[in-house]
Amino acid sequence: MSSVSRPTVHPVEAPPYTDGPQNALIRVRMKDVQGMPGTRGSLFLRLTQFVFGLVSICVMGTTSDFRSVTAFCYLVSAVSVQILWSLSLAVVDIYALLVRRTLRKQIIFRLFTIGDGIISTLTFAAACASAGITVLIDNDLDKCSVNHCVRFQTATAMAYISCFAMMPSFLLNFWTLASQ
Amino acid sequence: MSSVSRPTVHPVEAPPYTDGPQNALIRVRMKDVQGMPGTRGSLFLRLTQFVFGLVSICVMGTTSDFRSVTAFCYLVSAVSVQILWSLSLAVVDIYALLVRRTLRKQIIFRLFTIGDGIISTLTFAAACASAGITVLIDNDLDKCSVNHCVRFQTATAMAYISCFAMMPSFLLNFWTLASQ
Repeated sequence: MSSVSRPTVHPVEAPPYTDGPQNALIRVRMKDVQGMPGTRGSLFLRLTQFVFGLVSICVMGTTSDFRSVTAFCYLVSAVSVQILWSLSLAVVDIYALLVRRTLRKQIIFRLFTIGDGIISTLTFAAACASAGITVLIDNDLDKCSVNHCVRFQTATAMAYISCFAMMPSFLLNFWTLASQ
Repeated sequence: MSSVSRPTVHPVEAPPYTDGPQNALIRVRMKDVQGMPGTRGSLFLRLTQFVFGLVSICVMGTTSDFRSVTAFCYLVSAVSVQILWSLSLAVVDIYALLVRRTLRKQIIFRLFTIGDGIISTLTFAAACASAGITVLIDNDLDKCSVNHCVRFQTATAMAYISCFAMMPSFLLNFWTLASQ
């Protein structure tokens, strides 16, 4: 009996755990993407945000009359918050790279996404408001002779670059959060 | 031979298609979320964007001197593009609701996400630039007596509301695109 049934009946292999391959897939996919927390790409982005934000504040600080314009004060405040945020996350990235610890947890992605979203929106708003005023002074009123137009424009441009460097971090974290 | 093997060997059911339950899950989850293309929530958001954008342009248009400020001209241009976009998508939503056709295709989500992202960023930038100038005129220079401060502020506020009504559409489409 057994000799007959053996050739026709093959043991059915137990199906693999459903979450096993998915997790492996996610792990592989997440490892490939530079820019996520704990990667060199992320560290590069955070340092870019920090450096350009710092330059923006320093250039704006060298003008004596930026305090008389609300938008410029707001720019300095928003970029200050942003560079503190970027510096903190750069330190976290350096720590993760040094001790080879992963930061791929949902709570971290959620925190970083919300933080990046709020802070980049604030910085972008400040940069746009400052850009509106520099264009008003330069083009519309033509009063660059009595104002530090070049410095205002440089500070605004640096804030824009800092803000644009924050966008990939936000979009990447948001994408990862949604695809988990 | 056959009578022996029958009781011990049970037919193994074919495993369900792997994409079947996932698709069903996505379909159920997507049906629940109002605000996606082709839903009443989406139509409400698009009409809100359109109405507030239109009010913003009309209010700004009633001022005689908005053309002398670049940021206000940019606001009118950006919001014009935005209301055309919102109106087009509102028409698409109405069509989808009337003929009960689904718009849940990846290419549609991708198109709407990119469009919403770019246009809401442009509108937000224009609103921020206008806000910076209205604050400059009102608070910093205190020249509201010779300018239409209230109308400028109203137009800017309407543009902000229109832009904020676009954010849920963008985030929802982006989230759906990423989770597919």
